[in-house]
Amino acid sequence: MTTTGDVVYGRWAALETLRAGRRAVQGVLLAEGVEEKGIITDIMAAAQHSGLVPKKIQRRMMDDLAKGANHQGVVLRVAGYPYVELADILAFARERNERPFIVLLDLLQDPQNVGTVLRVADSVGVHGVVMQDRRGVSVTPAVVNASSGAVEHLRIAQVTNLVQAMKTLKENGVWLVGLDVGPNIVPIDRADLNMPIGIVLGSEGEGMRRLVRDTCDLMVTLPMRGHVDSLNVSTVGAVALYEAWKARGWEGWAHAGAGTEAPKA
Amino acid sequence: MTTTGDVVYGRWAALETLRAGRRAVQGVLLAEGVEEKGIITDIMAAAQHSGLVPKKIQRRMMDDLAKGANHQGVVLRVAGYPYVELADILAFARERNERPFIVLLDLLQDPQNVGTVLRVADSVGVHGVVMQDRRGVSVTPAVVNASSGAVEHLRIAQVTNLVQAMKTLKENGVWLVGLDVGPNIVPIDRADLNMPIGIVLGSEGEGMRRLVRDTCDLMVTLPMRGHVDSLNVSTVGAVALYEAWKARGWEGWAHAGAGTEAPKA
Repeated sequence: MTTTGDVVYGRWAALETLRAGRRAVQGVLLAEGVEEKGIITDIMAAAQHSGLVPKKIQRRMMDDLAKGANHQGVVLRVAGYPYVELADILAFARERNERPFIVLLDLLQDPQNVGTVLRVADSVGVHGVVMQDRRGVSVTPAVVNASSGAVEHLRIAQVTNLVQAMKTLKENGVWLVGLDVGPNIVPIDRADLNMPIGIVLGSEGEGMRRLVRDTCDLMVTLPMRGHVDSLNVSTVGAVALYEAWKARGWEGWAHAGAGTEAPKA
Repeated sequence: MTTTGDVVYGRWAALETLRAGRRAVQGVLLAEGVEEKGIITDIMAAAQHSGLVPKKIQRRMMDDLAKGANHQGVVLRVAGYPYVELADILAFARERNERPFIVLLDLLQDPQNVGTVLRVADSVGVHGVVMQDRRGVSVTPAVVNASSGAVEHLRIAQVTNLVQAMKTLKENGVWLVGLDVGPNIVPIDRADLNMPIGIVLGSEGEGMRRLVRDTCDLMVTLPMRGHVDSLNVSTVGAVALYEAWKARGWEGWAHAGAGTEAPKA
């Protein structure tokens, strides 16, 4: 399922979109005056590799295309984000011969938060991300940019009903762990995350919806000692995803043996 | 050491500044038309508690005071940020009868990143933060805002020479652990973080300066499996600080016994 014509703006976002090669790219646009060095050279090379010739346009036109966002002199005209189905995510885990490791976002609103979470999700190698297709943010150009293009490498399923998707995952043996804040919730390190798992994150203001929370198998919390009552959802997501990946023994890390000879402090 | 007159903008930043009570507050300003409900009511109550009467001003005047930043209708006129000395941080650890838990920032540039790291630093209860007073960002109104006011509760030392401060910490038995990215670096969970510790974070673009790195006792990395080569320093900082606090048994967490009865997944 793809949506209609879209743009990708920002240097890293553009480069990763070209590298991932999952979207049809109709045009690679550079702002006049952009210096052809560093990552711009990488973008031009990646474009050429795909048979595309970068075109220079006026900065004002680019500002319009990026709707005023900070495009860093680079915009791609692309087909819509290539969402996958929930089944594709489970199939990818099987293909890798790994127990599912999935993230579920319950109506997150802020593109910056979502982008940050998705960048971490890519970094820990999740098999996919599930989000609901209404009322929450979708994979907009702002999200692509905030993720530094990481979303282009991720499998993201947009579902009409998150709770229904959660039930499907449970039927497939996935254990759903919700993150919440509160004094009477198990701290995250007490839960066994080394199993087929879906990490569920609630929205910025309201947290998780009641029914989403009730569908989780377990709620865990990040302890807090400070004076400010809550943490940003992108911080919570980053810590939780790394905690889960660590529990899985850094599965798939290319350098899993690295540093074993180093003196243990 | 305080700097000259300053502002604090943003609702959470203003509320925490008033609650912390560490800066002299010369004025509490609300934009005309701001609804007196929710957190605004809390701000007004905190102001009254300090003997201050909130004053309504035109939104345009407020835009000028906040230099165009998103002030959410609230600005405080305050004395400069109350930095502490390095010795105060070590004294605070002794006062709490805890082994030092400190964060060092090597020339971070982006107020949003610094604010996010400092919010997490408050959340895990570090005894203090050390940053260099030139070339890196200091505790500006943008940092206070990005931290949701958490900096108002933190002890932050601004030093003229970070390496010198590191040496002083080492002389005081503090073990310095630098975060870096790379294949041949020990993953963070292999290091013993349950000791007097200083977590050192490098800047966004360049990472840690050579001499800062060489002064660390140990370098550790966050494993990465994804396609995008690096993580935001605020993500790295959040994961590292939580990892360290966990290694210390969530020391000082008010609910350290919470959830022990919950079924282990």
